[in-house]
Amino acid sequence: MSMNEQAINNIMEGVIKGVIEQLKTEAPRVSVSTGACEPIPVELSARHVHLSEQDALELFGKPLTPVRELSQPGQYLCEERVRLIGPKGVMDNVAVLGPARSASQVEISNTEARTLGIKAPVRQSGDVAGTPGIILASQTGIVGLEEGVIVAARHIHMSPEDSDKFGVKDNDRVSVRLESDRPVILEDVVCRVHPEFKLAMHIDPDEGNSAGWNKSVTGKIVR
Amino acid sequence: MSMNEQAINNIMEGVIKGVIEQLKTEAPRVSVSTGACEPIPVELSARHVHLSEQDALELFGKPLTPVRELSQPGQYLCEERVRLIGPKGVMDNVAVLGPARSASQVEISNTEARTLGIKAPVRQSGDVAGTPGIILASQTGIVGLEEGVIVAARHIHMSPEDSDKFGVKDNDRVSVRLESDRPVILEDVVCRVHPEFKLAMHIDPDEGNSAGWNKSVTGKIVR
Repeated sequence: MSMNEQAINNIMEGVIKGVIEQLKTEAPRVSVSTGACEPIPVELSARHVHLSEQDALELFGKPLTPVRELSQPGQYLCEERVRLIGPKGVMDNVAVLGPARSASQVEISNTEARTLGIKAPVRQSGDVAGTPGIILASQTGIVGLEEGVIVAARHIHMSPEDSDKFGVKDNDRVSVRLESDRPVILEDVVCRVHPEFKLAMHIDPDEGNSAGWNKSVTGKIVR
Repeated sequence: MSMNEQAINNIMEGVIKGVIEQLKTEAPRVSVSTGACEPIPVELSARHVHLSEQDALELFGKPLTPVRELSQPGQYLCEERVRLIGPKGVMDNVAVLGPARSASQVEISNTEARTLGIKAPVRQSGDVAGTPGIILASQTGIVGLEEGVIVAARHIHMSPEDSDKFGVKDNDRVSVRLESDRPVILEDVVCRVHPEFKLAMHIDPDEGNSAGWNKSVTGKIVR
């Protein structure tokens, strides 16, 4: 090899290495950080209602009575139960979750919506504008909601620390693989970030059934 | 660096970048053939039973009566209906599909299994060994099945031509994305290949609900 060829060779090697380095830094920049692989507890959110203070008073004659803490700090199951009355069906003994909210809201699965005869849209909790109404009854009172029936959109509660770890922001949508013997990847899972939130993914009974859910099933963010 | 070296450098860089660009456009050569992107019709398979000739005779006193063709050639809905009687609940007016099979089989969703009080495993149709039993009743007869209650495992019926197109074989498991406003990727979907099969994916009501299914929803094999 002449000196010239050797020189060209060296230049080539340098150029190629430079381009490769450039590609390395540009190309596989993964969107999520290493925490994305950490398993997320998955909780099944069965049908329940949230009540406004006024609706609670009308149904029970007194404010709601906490009986058990739920996984999200400050949230609790109440002693009170309600009956849901839809145009095609009725559901008894439905759980009431506290504390009271600014507006009453009923969260059911698509299967339950069909039983009640209500076309409930998939919505985030609290986003009830224009949703169908329903009748709520206790043993002593009755309340007609003009709106508020939703199928709760799947979501993950997480703290700001968790969101940093997973590389996501509040309201980001991610795909989550549920690790079970009937595995599914649920897309469009909303990340809900709040300092008070404890890491937990919430799915509804339909999603739980189709994913072979049990209490030990965890989720992994896959993108 | 001399003029010469600089010139060589520039040319090389151009050539290398050209090659890399070419690689980029060639790269995403998916492992499955082009047909993998073809949408697959998705059908919701509601609860139903298949009966043996003997069980049909015991329940109805005569062989099954076809009333409507189903999507899979040779399969039909029957005039006859049965009642499912489980330890915790009853379901009336359940569809019977023909023709008669060698063994009776009951296909329900996980939600329905819970209503009936039966722990039904997820199985492929026909694979009923060791599954729970149930009581079937008509207006004139009653039959106790010792086994045969399953949650049907999601699957795709396809012809050998379809399987070639999708690059899969009989019994292969694929992941299928259901394209809806509540999108999911169902994993472990079994491919069932037979010359008589018409292309259709079958899911159960739980899967349909969690995937926002309607008649226009299609599936795409994603791996």
